[in-house]
Amino acid sequence: MQIPNKNTVRNEAQSPVSQVAFLSVQDILDLVAKIGMEAFLKGLAKYIKDDFRRWETFDKSPRFAAHSPEGVIELMPTSDGQKFSFKYVNGHPKNTQKGLQTVTAFGVLADVDSGYPLMLSEMTVLTALRTSATSALMATYLAPANSQSMALIGNGAQSEFQAFAFRTLLGINTLRLYDVDTNASEKCKANLSVYGFDVTICATPEEAVKGVDIITTCTADKRNATILTSAMVKDGAYINAIGGDCPGKTELDKALLLRADVFVEYEEQTRIEGDIQQLSRDFSVTEMHRVINGEAKGRTSPAQLIIFDGVGFAIEDFSALRYVYQLMTQHLPLKELELIATPKDPRNLFGLFARSTTIRKVG
Amino acid sequence: MQIPNKNTVRNEAQSPVSQVAFLSVQDILDLVAKIGMEAFLKGLAKYIKDDFRRWETFDKSPRFAAHSPEGVIELMPTSDGQKFSFKYVNGHPKNTQKGLQTVTAFGVLADVDSGYPLMLSEMTVLTALRTSATSALMATYLAPANSQSMALIGNGAQSEFQAFAFRTLLGINTLRLYDVDTNASEKCKANLSVYGFDVTICATPEEAVKGVDIITTCTADKRNATILTSAMVKDGAYINAIGGDCPGKTELDKALLLRADVFVEYEEQTRIEGDIQQLSRDFSVTEMHRVINGEAKGRTSPAQLIIFDGVGFAIEDFSALRYVYQLMTQHLPLKELELIATPKDPRNLFGLFARSTTIRKVG
Repeated sequence: MQIPNKNTVRNEAQSPVSQVAFLSVQDILDLVAKIGMEAFLKGLAKYIKDDFRRWETFDKSPRFAAHSPEGVIELMPTSDGQKFSFKYVNGHPKNTQKGLQTVTAFGVLADVDSGYPLMLSEMTVLTALRTSATSALMATYLAPANSQSMALIGNGAQSEFQAFAFRTLLGINTLRLYDVDTNASEKCKANLSVYGFDVTICATPEEAVKGVDIITTCTADKRNATILTSAMVKDGAYINAIGGDCPGKTELDKALLLRADVFVEYEEQTRIEGDIQQLSRDFSVTEMHRVINGEAKGRTSPAQLIIFDGVGFAIEDFSALRYVYQLMTQHLPLKELELIATPKDPRNLFGLFARSTTIRKVG
Repeated sequence: MQIPNKNTVRNEAQSPVSQVAFLSVQDILDLVAKIGMEAFLKGLAKYIKDDFRRWETFDKSPRFAAHSPEGVIELMPTSDGQKFSFKYVNGHPKNTQKGLQTVTAFGVLADVDSGYPLMLSEMTVLTALRTSATSALMATYLAPANSQSMALIGNGAQSEFQAFAFRTLLGINTLRLYDVDTNASEKCKANLSVYGFDVTICATPEEAVKGVDIITTCTADKRNATILTSAMVKDGAYINAIGGDCPGKTELDKALLLRADVFVEYEEQTRIEGDIQQLSRDFSVTEMHRVINGEAKGRTSPAQLIIFDGVGFAIEDFSALRYVYQLMTQHLPLKELELIATPKDPRNLFGLFARSTTIRKVG
């Protein structure tokens, strides 16, 4: 990939550090607790919006994927010419049988001018946060005006984050939950009720979507499933479809997609990973950076049926890492990893061994 | 990339850990000091040899490179179907002007079955060690029998490591140093003399190579330089050429390459990065895994002029990470990074926030 020339992008303070800052899972949890979930998500959405605004300055290399019989390990790099980031993320569906997470992730933010890594951060929790912040940000351009209620189809790991992000950015407080596993819905309701959400668990997806302004689908089903049929969705609705996010994993009825105006993060990637993988390439979609920049329209009428086909893009991870890197310096004691060798004379790397007990002498 | 099916490779104990082991720069230095430089290099060379033996089981995806006006940031992934590794490495020539390293590196070893990262390790020092271990390992197949002396052309960060590796694997104790900067040679001599090496600093490369059995070129010159001309090298010599390791950076006279039998790590990569980038694609070279497996011959006669055109390959980093991961468990107290979120119920990621002070309640 060719990193964009930094002169073409907004000037941002460079701070090559001698060592690498570290944000653990607990650090991210503490950071959110400290400034509040709503404030955190609002700030994160702002960073994502700012980065989508300067879309053209980003390198958009495809992710690197290492497939195995059990799952996939991916490296997702991007850069704005000043900072470089990559996320390591795995997807291993059978992990839960071993008591392990299906998805774990971590990321690194680096300084392009020096090539030095600046920060290593957990990204399992951070990805859940950035995914919900992205969804809610896009909804501010695409959802019906004065939306009050949202159906949450799929009540797994992402569901509560979606609820918080939509309340934070759109004021949605009324939720109708549906999951094939009632325990998931009960878990989601229990987590959200204490925060003042008005939550109803529904017996069918039909019942869940009845009368709502916004439908969020975030199911974990690994097949080409049909969570929403065309008949279930009325004109004027807004569908935030984020569960269909890899080849062979879709959530929406093809007929429903064909009825709607579809918005995406990055067309090239969404054609492969999103729900529109079901449609031919000539089906037209709109990239959200164009809407955010005012180059394209979002919702233009109350009757418009709109779908955001979200798959998650490296720029959102970049925004999230840039955001927590800045927050960390304000709210957390600096934790550093001694990950970079720092000999006084760069040519005297061997001299570092003088810092240790001497090498056993020979000869 | 498609990770090789693990059933096709040697069975190795899988150990998904709940958190990620961390090896700092100091940990690597301590590890080497603890078991001794020679023992460390011998063990590392063995791991590299074992991995070259099972060459076909490795994925050999090209590295990902992010170029900027100041330098390059690379991600070098590989896998044997059981473990996955990648190295982050930058190259920024102007860094030394800012008192920063030209090259810094770190790496991650992960478990393919679970997708979980197992270890994060510094790799600036580790790369210097694996590069020298690789050079010496290849020399055991290619250098003249009973070699006694080596010229070291280029006395920078890699030079002492080369000296130790060649003494460890080939018993070379007599060194003739040359560098355009005499201070570098003085630094190298000072570092090595205390370990019993017989070191002579030479005024010219011609003088340095006079009468030696092995010539190692590890110069930092970023251009297409000519460190060795054909006239300077007698038949029967062995050249360990490792400084020519990226496009536009070569060390050897084209005529010298044409005279020699050239051996490489991975032809596809060396054609782009190695000294043979100067030659047409029809110039035949031999991949070292074929020599190590007995499918091809190394040195066949004392008169043979042989060049190892080393550029550094991801499998060597994989070997090094696998090696220190095993050593660490024996010799160092385990240091773990809390990099992986571990909710009891994978679907209840949000529940982790209960571990932190409660999120500010709203509504």
